[in-house]
Amino acid sequence: MKYSIGVDMGGTNTSIGLVDENGNLIVKSNFKTTDYPVLEDFLTELVKHICSASEKCENIDEIAGVGIGTPNGNYYKGTIELAPNLPFKGVIQIKKILEILLINHGLNLRVKVTNDANAAGMGEMMYGAAKGIKNFVMITLGTGVGSAIIVDGKMVYGSDGFAGEVGHTIIFPDGRSCGCGRKGCLETYSSATGIRRTALELLHSTSKPSLLRNLEEEEINGKTISEAAGQNDALALECIDFTARILSIGLANTVAVTSPEKIVIAGGLSKAGELLLKPLRTYFEQNLYPVFRNKVSIELSKLDDNNAAILGAAALSFE
Amino acid sequence: MKYSIGVDMGGTNTSIGLVDENGNLIVKSNFKTTDYPVLEDFLTELVKHICSASEKCENIDEIAGVGIGTPNGNYYKGTIELAPNLPFKGVIQIKKILEILLINHGLNLRVKVTNDANAAGMGEMMYGAAKGIKNFVMITLGTGVGSAIIVDGKMVYGSDGFAGEVGHTIIFPDGRSCGCGRKGCLETYSSATGIRRTALELLHSTSKPSLLRNLEEEEINGKTISEAAGQNDALALECIDFTARILSIGLANTVAVTSPEKIVIAGGLSKAGELLLKPLRTYFEQNLYPVFRNKVSIELSKLDDNNAAILGAAALSFE
Repeated sequence: MKYSIGVDMGGTNTSIGLVDENGNLIVKSNFKTTDYPVLEDFLTELVKHICSASEKCENIDEIAGVGIGTPNGNYYKGTIELAPNLPFKGVIQIKKILEILLINHGLNLRVKVTNDANAAGMGEMMYGAAKGIKNFVMITLGTGVGSAIIVDGKMVYGSDGFAGEVGHTIIFPDGRSCGCGRKGCLETYSSATGIRRTALELLHSTSKPSLLRNLEEEEINGKTISEAAGQNDALALECIDFTARILSIGLANTVAVTSPEKIVIAGGLSKAGELLLKPLRTYFEQNLYPVFRNKVSIELSKLDDNNAAILGAAALSFE
Repeated sequence: MKYSIGVDMGGTNTSIGLVDENGNLIVKSNFKTTDYPVLEDFLTELVKHICSASEKCENIDEIAGVGIGTPNGNYYKGTIELAPNLPFKGVIQIKKILEILLINHGLNLRVKVTNDANAAGMGEMMYGAAKGIKNFVMITLGTGVGSAIIVDGKMVYGSDGFAGEVGHTIIFPDGRSCGCGRKGCLETYSSATGIRRTALELLHSTSKPSLLRNLEEEEINGKTISEAAGQNDALALECIDFTARILSIGLANTVAVTSPEKIVIAGGLSKAGELLLKPLRTYFEQNLYPVFRNKVSIELSKLDDNNAAILGAAALSFE
């Protein structure tokens, strides 16, 4: 049996797990990223956890490597570049540095790095809803919209490692302002942040009754909107319907480029489940170029949310 | 030296050429597709031309195969499916039938089929503006907008062979009606047909003076609009500017999916040259997600228009 160590490095928490090639998480540990704002300290702590995970493996030769999923991770360069939500600024040569630190601890392991959406895609391909599927698209609906494009069984990294930014395709050329400096990007509509913007717009511009009016403005988010929609709240349902319609255009456009067999959806907003998927599938079929209709399924991730990123990062070593 | 026979099968003409692996066209012949509205007759004529081309090769073993580029050609299935501009209706098993007919003529050659935009992309990759480039996008601006997506040196066919329909990505969700039944597709704006629609809209909805007003409505097309723009005609320049702006959004969205290094543009409308490319490059940079800025070049095809499709189809045998 082969094993891999997966690292899910996020702005708040960093989790480390030993994973076997069947996707079983053997052992898991974590620490607060925010407790280590200095890179050297963070890496010292990370190495400690990796060493500890490796000790659960009887034979060190059975460990194929270390995979790291992180915001703005670059697969080609093994770097983290300008990640806005991590405490470490600039370009970090995490692959190089970590490999050296591990050797110093007697672990000669190859480190691979990718961004969090690609790690999620790897996880689905190896162990999840896209197992055995050669052409699919992974979409994570979180604070933003992340994506991974898989063509012919391989992750598409593109010329620079930054392929898979479906969240930053423009849906409305003169639409909502996006954090990226442009207008009308998919993620200004169809992320947790996007649906909140939709709800606030509807609450402010209409006097429609809604359960959401009982909440403080800060409490309005993907979760509370989904809950209200689950109670048949018309305004909340309208938010979800609008979110689904815009998402369907972004997905249909992506299908026109790479013609996947399946789209797998994960992330906080996907917890809305069928409330979101039902209108999404309807709009999606309408917005698909006819040759693709009734061919592309949309499914929720099958991986446990808490471990999906570790599994996906670990999968990098099994490529 | 290896050779391949390339077939450029179009609604009006079909051209056949013997091509060497360096992209030299050794011999070329053609016939009118419209003279052979019955499939059997068409194939008999096609086989005659293929046999004749093969005879220019001293040793038959040097011929790697036959490649066909055709509207609605499907690489996986070796078929032509529901091509609106060909006289042959339904699904045609052209690969199978042609291989049998060739064997009957003593030619045991493998036949490969792809659509015309993918053939153009193959040609650019093997011999043209994308030689040595592993990640690029080919765009043909003709009656419609065709495209081919190349990732890591391989043509992206997707799950069903129909990947690469950038012309049918939706730019304006409530925009112009498209022949495909939906609204706001890129090709309703940025094709030869699209720029004509733009010109007619501007001519009818404004009283701006323009050289185009001296023409009959049927004479207004990509060529005459480009010519007027070349003479500094303000309305014609406005048409080109608008065409470039919309095209830049479609291209920027495609870059966000596959992160190519280069975009190669061919087809009738590309004859406008720098008149189109200059505003296109400016808008493109503005509409690119920041991480991709100043990385992706836009270039015109370097292949001779008359032979590009034959070269690209022939390249299928050299894969």
